[in-house]
Parts: sequence; C-alpha cells; structure tokens
Amino acid sequence: MNAIDIIRRKRDGYELSREEIFALVEGISSNQIPDYQLSAWAMAVYFNSMNIRETTDLTMAMAASGDVMDLSAIAGIKVDKHSTGGVGDKTTLVVMPLVAAAGVPVAKMSGRGLGHTGGTIDKFESIPGFQVEREHQQFIDQVNRIKAAIVSQTGNLVPADKRLYALRDVTATIDSIPLIASSIMSKKIACGAQGIVLDVKTGEGAFMQDLTGARNLARAMVDIGKEAGREVAALITDMSQPLGNAVGNSLEVIEAIDTLKGHGPEDLTSLSVEIAAYMVLIGRQAKSIEEARKTVRDILLSGRGLEKFQAIIEAQGGRIDLQEKHYGLGQAPQLIEVKADQTGYLQKMNALYIGRAAMLLGAGREKIGDKIDYKVGIKLLHKPGDRIQKGETLAVMHGAGKNLTEAEQLIKDSIQWSNEPVKKTDLIIETIL
Amino acid sequence: MNAIDIIRRKRDGYELSREEIFALVEGISSNQIPDYQLSAWAMAVYFNSMNIRETTDLTMAMAASGDVMDLSAIAGIKVDKHSTGGVGDKTTLVVMPLVAAAGVPVAKMSGRGLGHTGGTIDKFESIPGFQVEREHQQFIDQVNRIKAAIVSQTGNLVPADKRLYALRDVTATIDSIPLIASSIMSKKIACGAQGIVLDVKTGEGAFMQDLTGARNLARAMVDIGKEAGREVAALITDMSQPLGNAVGNSLEVIEAIDTLKGHGPEDLTSLSVEIAAYMVLIGRQAKSIEEARKTVRDILLSGRGLEKFQAIIEAQGGRIDLQEKHYGLGQAPQLIEVKADQTGYLQKMNALYIGRAAMLLGAGREKIGDKIDYKVGIKLLHKPGDRIQKGETLAVMHGAGKNLTEAEQLIKDSIQWSNEPVKKTDLIIETIL
Repeated sequence: MNAIDIIRRKRDGYELSREEIFALVEGISSNQIPDYQLSAWAMAVYFNSMNIRETTDLTMAMAASGDVMDLSAIAGIKVDKHSTGGVGDKTTLVVMPLVAAAGVPVAKMSGRGLGHTGGTIDKFESIPGFQVEREHQQFIDQVNRIKAAIVSQTGNLVPADKRLYALRDVTATIDSIPLIASSIMSKKIACGAQGIVLDVKTGEGAFMQDLTGARNLARAMVDIGKEAGREVAALITDMSQPLGNAVGNSLEVIEAIDTLKGHGPEDLTSLSVEIAAYMVLIGRQAKSIEEARKTVRDILLSGRGLEKFQAIIEAQGGRIDLQEKHYGLGQAPQLIEVKADQTGYLQKMNALYIGRAAMLLGAGREKIGDKIDYKVGIKLLHKPGDRIQKGETLAVMHGAGKNLTEAEQLIKDSIQWSNEPVKKTDLIIETIL
Repeated sequence: MNAIDIIRRKRDGYELSREEIFALVEGISSNQIPDYQLSAWAMAVYFNSMNIRETTDLTMAMAASGDVMDLSAIAGIKVDKHSTGGVGDKTTLVVMPLVAAAGVPVAKMSGRGLGHTGGTIDKFESIPGFQVEREHQQFIDQVNRIKAAIVSQTGNLVPADKRLYALRDVTATIDSIPLIASSIMSKKIACGAQGIVLDVKTGEGAFMQDLTGARNLARAMVDIGKEAGREVAALITDMSQPLGNAVGNSLEVIEAIDTLKGHGPEDLTSLSVEIAAYMVLIGRQAKSIEEARKTVRDILLSGRGLEKFQAIIEAQGGRIDLQEKHYGLGQAPQLIEVKADQTGYLQKMNALYIGRAAMLLGAGREKIGDKIDYKVGIKLLHKPGDRIQKGETLAVMHGAGKNLTEAEQLIKDSIQWSNEPVKKTDLIIETIL
C-alpha cells in the first residue's frame, strides 16, 4: 500500500477501500506517512469528500489507533453525549445527573476548553476538591454504584486523530464533513460509547456556522453510527447566542444547579431535557421519546436530578453547599455592570464575542496550557428578544482586574439592536435520527 | 502574509494576488513554509487551478528564487528549446547546430536523464572528451564565437521549483497544468532565454499522455511567455512511439550525425527542421516560418549543420571522427537481434516500454546517481506501419550483459500487431503560438 497511490485515488474521486484507509491510519499512527502526504490527502478529501463507508472505516481505524476504554464491566447500555462546542454550554452538568437518575449509565471522558468555548472538565474542576483523574477501576465502580462518573481525557486516546487534526488545523483542511465527523466519532467510540446523543451547534459562535453544514455533519455522524452499530441521535441547536445566562466556569456550575433546582434559564432547561430524553431512550429506559421526556421532566421536578448531581460531586471529592450563597463556589473580586448605550430591542447577541470576552476575563485559554480563573465570567441579564432602556444593565462582568475594558467593549459589540420587536429564535432547530 | 490564508483562498477558488504568490515563493525558498502547507496548497491548485496571471507570477517568482543566467554579453536574440521529454529524443543535437549556423545564438543549459527518458547532457557526454562543465565566461565566449554552447545545469538554479517539484512528486500533485507550466518556464527564464520553442510530447511514453492535456500545457506556456515578454512557440508532437530509430546515448549521437549528414530517419529530420525553423524565426533570422524552414533545410543539405556540430564538439573538447565506423564512438560488446514472433503489420510501438528496455540495458538511470553505460541501447529496424515477417529482426539490442532477457521481453511487449495495413501517424500534431 503506497501513500501516493492513496492520495492520487482520492484526488481522482475514487472510493478508498477499507484496506487503504486502515493502511493510511496505520501510517499516521506509526509516523510512516509524512505530514506533507497527509495534508495533501486531507486536501483531496476536502474536495472529493468520502462516503459513509469510507468515513466509518476512518472513524473505526482512528478509534483503534490508541487506547480504547473498556466499559464492559459497566451494567447497562452506555450512552454518551457530545456537543460540538458552544458558549455557556453547561448541558453536560445538567444532563448527566438526569440521565443517571433514570438508570442509564453515563461513563464520561471529557476535555478542557480552548479558545472561546469552555470545557466540561474545567467546569467540574471549578468545584472545590473535585477530582477529574480517577483510576480505571475506580471510575467503573462509581458508574456501577451511582450510574455516573466523569474523568478528564488521559492516556493515548485516538493518537491518529490527534496528529491528523493538528495538521488539518494548519493546512486549511478542517472544514471537511467526513474529516470532522470521523474525528468526533472516533473519540466517542474509543471512549466506549454504545449510544451517542450529539448536540450539533450552528450559528455565529458555533464551529459549523451555517445550518446546511451543521445538518450535513449531523447526518454524517448519525450514519457513521448506524454503519458502526452505535445508536446515534443528533440535535441541531442554535448557537447564535450563548446558552443560558452564565459564561465562565463557577458561574456555569451555579446555573446548572439552579437548573437542576427547577429555576434555570428556559433555553438551558429545555435543551438539557431534550438531550437527556434521547439518552434515556437510547439507553432503553423508555419506549418512546415522549415517554423519555416525561421520565426526565419527572426527575427534574422531583429533585432527583439535583440529588444525583450531589452524589456525583461527593463521589469525586467535590464540595458544594446548596444552602450557601453561590453554593460555596465563591465569587470573583470585581463585579462590573455593562450598561445599554441605547434604548431598543436586543435583536442578536453574537455568542463568539461573548465567549471571547469571557476568555479575556480569564475564564478560558487562548492557548493550551494557559491557566484559567474559575470564578471570572459574564452573567447576562438580557437575551435576544428583550426590550431594553438606555442605561439598563445588560450584563455583569465577574472580573479579576484583567482585560476589563476590552471585555466590556466585546460584550457591547456582540449586540445588534432593533427598533422593532424581535421574535425569539428556536433553540432546537431539528433532530436527525 | 499567512500561509494558511493563502491555502484557504486557493482552496476556496480565489485568484491569488501577486503579493501572495511572491510571499509563497519566498516562503518556499527560505523554508519558512513547511512541506505540509506547501503540499496542501499544491493540492488546492490541482483542484482550483490558477489563471495565466497567477501562473506567470509563480513562474517569475520561482525564476528569481536562485541564480539567474546573465546572457546579456551574448549578441543577438537568445532562443532556447525545451522538450517535455521523450524516448529517443535527440533533437537538441540536431537543432542546436542548425540554428547556430543560421546565426541565432543558442546558449544551452541542460539536464541529465532520469527514468525512461534520456538527458541531452548524457548524450553529449557519450562523446569522448566532451566537457559539459564550463566557466561562465568561457560559455559566453563560445556562444559569441560559434553561436552555440551547452553546459550542464549547475549552481542554485530555481531552488523554489526544485523544492516544490520534489514535494509534488510524492504528493500526487504533479499533474497540474499551471504547476507544470511554471516549473518548465521558470527554468527556461532563469537560464536567460528571450525566446523559447517548446516541444510538448503526447501519447504513451510522454509526460502528458493525452492530447487535451498536452494542448492545455502548451497553451499555458505560450501564454506565460506572452505575459512575461518572451516569444514562445509550442509544437505538440507524437510520442506514442520512439523518435527516430536509436535509443541510448552513443547510438543517438550517431543517429544525430546521420541526420545532419542528410540521411537520418524521416521523423527526426522533419521535427528537427520544424523546431529549428521556429527558433530561427523567433531569433529574427527569417521573416516568416516558410522562409525559416527554407533557411534551415538549406543549412542541413549544404552540410553547414554538420560543420557546426563538429565545431561545437571541438570547442568543448570532444572527439569524433566522421570517417570512422560509429564515428569513433565505439560499440557495446553484445549485439542481440530481437525477432518478430509473428507475421503482420506493426500497429503500435509503446515508447515507454522501449525507453524502459533501454534503461534496463544500462542506458538510463533508475534513480539519481545511477551510472549509465553510454554505448548500450536499442536500434529499431522497424517502426509502426511496417509489414513484418515472422522471424524478421525487429530491433538490435546493444547490451553489456545486463538485463538482456527483460529488455527483449519489453521490446516484444511494446508492439501491437495488426492484420490490416496501418496508417503512419503524424509526428507534428499542431503548433500553438
């Protein structure tokens, strides 16, 4: 098997065979295929794409390229969730306890954030004492005992994807549906998921900014799942504005707890319920999506979700106090109100700008290894659709002396005003099964 | 200027600006753009092509990336020729003296052969004593004195193309018209040519196997010439069979001398006259192509071409003796006749196979640095169109004990037989100006 032939065949629009794709991934893992051939191949894929069979082969070959999580000792159908990344997206914190409380095991590996989007691991780590590194057996035991555990991605997980993704990032070959889909799915499969619910974000602030792209990506991932024998559901959701009202690690944990208490923001609540419902359905704890939604809503309203959340925190060494102010998570030293410069309807709020503002305040990493400040972030007091008077507070920055002026400007710039009343957009755009 | 942006813009089908292309070439020369970005860019060019403005900018930027031959001390319009490479192509040996005898200076830099096609420098070096390395001043003086000189490519000529070509070779990005055209033209321009006659081969055995590709390449190079202020003419010629009857270095020199004596093979003679005529026209030693053809034919018939050839050999230290057998070039130790296995019409003779057979006998290099044997090669006694009896000699292998069986088989395999009479194909398919 010759790398030049594989590049040429893809360049000329042929379907690559399973043998060719596995040889390619073997060459990626072993470093026998040099970067320059890999990037030429990725560009050929950008132009000529890959069909679902090829994409599934790439997914499975990459999934097998490094460590593979063995979750066989966990009873039940292991269902994972994945979001393509958003601003203020703390759904995992809400969804995990809801699903676990319904009896579906959630054995979650997650990553840290980079750029304008936060990482679930960072959010959990903002809880004092919370341990995200667990021995394998400890992790398995916790899932069997309380149906949920979360650990940070460690070890040699999908090294082939790691190499390929880093290369795509510097060769303008990120934007290829089969390459994005196989990158995401290979990680989920290496993490041992039998079922996966995907939250594919679209709009400004999302990885896939346009709806067509998001739809194609969702379709590809659902089809890879079918081909690979994994049950997959994908929600396409709006990320033209931040999700919920809190952006920043502790602030998002607080908002997740509020949501589990039943008084979280409406958008976060409804998305969390929908994702949890599909996970419960795939995990065979409901016979229909309607029944699954009812199960999840009952868990939320009865407080069993909050109890499960406390159980997870406790099992992993974390300390929260639901009676205390900010649930014991503390607060940033500076609270600065951002005021409206005009009167009008808030038409749009660019999630990317809000994410960048939070990152500048210290809530996110500009580059890998940057230290983050868990307490800083942004609390939005208004969202698109609201009528606002000049001088009213739009948002409160929770800062620590860093980049306050730039962040304030970004928050103001994120907003488009309208003189006419504005209709709220739907959060869940469509579901792809 | 950011390499990723340049790749992305070409990927997305935009025209690159002059600044972008010069920055790219600067990045190639300085090694500041890594191989993996360069190959991704080349693949994007493969798919989205470049227009003549972009291609000319690339040509000129690459031509300026290293040493540039200063031929300003040579009187007259310097006209070069270039062939995209063929089997048995010894036209330069015939054309150079014809053109020089017409008063057009030919200051030629040429390369060594690789694979199934021979190199002009190797052919000249098969002449005992012939020196292909000359000091610059010596080279200039010789051209001013006798209107012709040939040296092997030395120094740091078009380093950007050298790097890009080596990378394209291993990333399936050779077959891109703008990249091929700029590679060829940058070398010709760096060699100081003011006018260029191109021989673009097509057919099996040629670099551009199909006529459409050859036509597009010829058109691109002629248009680059116009854009860059160089007068260029391109002949598209058939390389589905070897040119002339001799393949192998000394054998080809002998055939070139025969041709200059007026009794060479008809195909070689007519192609040499046509190429020489366009060079004479571009060199302003004739007012029309008809007049140029007549000038060249007169030179050939009068023996002035042969005299000029002898003058070039002598000026560069070579020794030939026109009275001696094989003109003093000697002969290989083994002469093996390849016989026809059947009776019929010779329909086709695959030039690639014949070239490979000659290479196997030792006439060419499989890889750079391989030593070649000047005396070995193949003398064809029949060409397509001939009626042949079973047992008749098709060709004589001039061997030195190496790969005789494999070479004989390749020669036999190169032939397609027909029971019906076969029409000879035209050698010169069209001319692009």
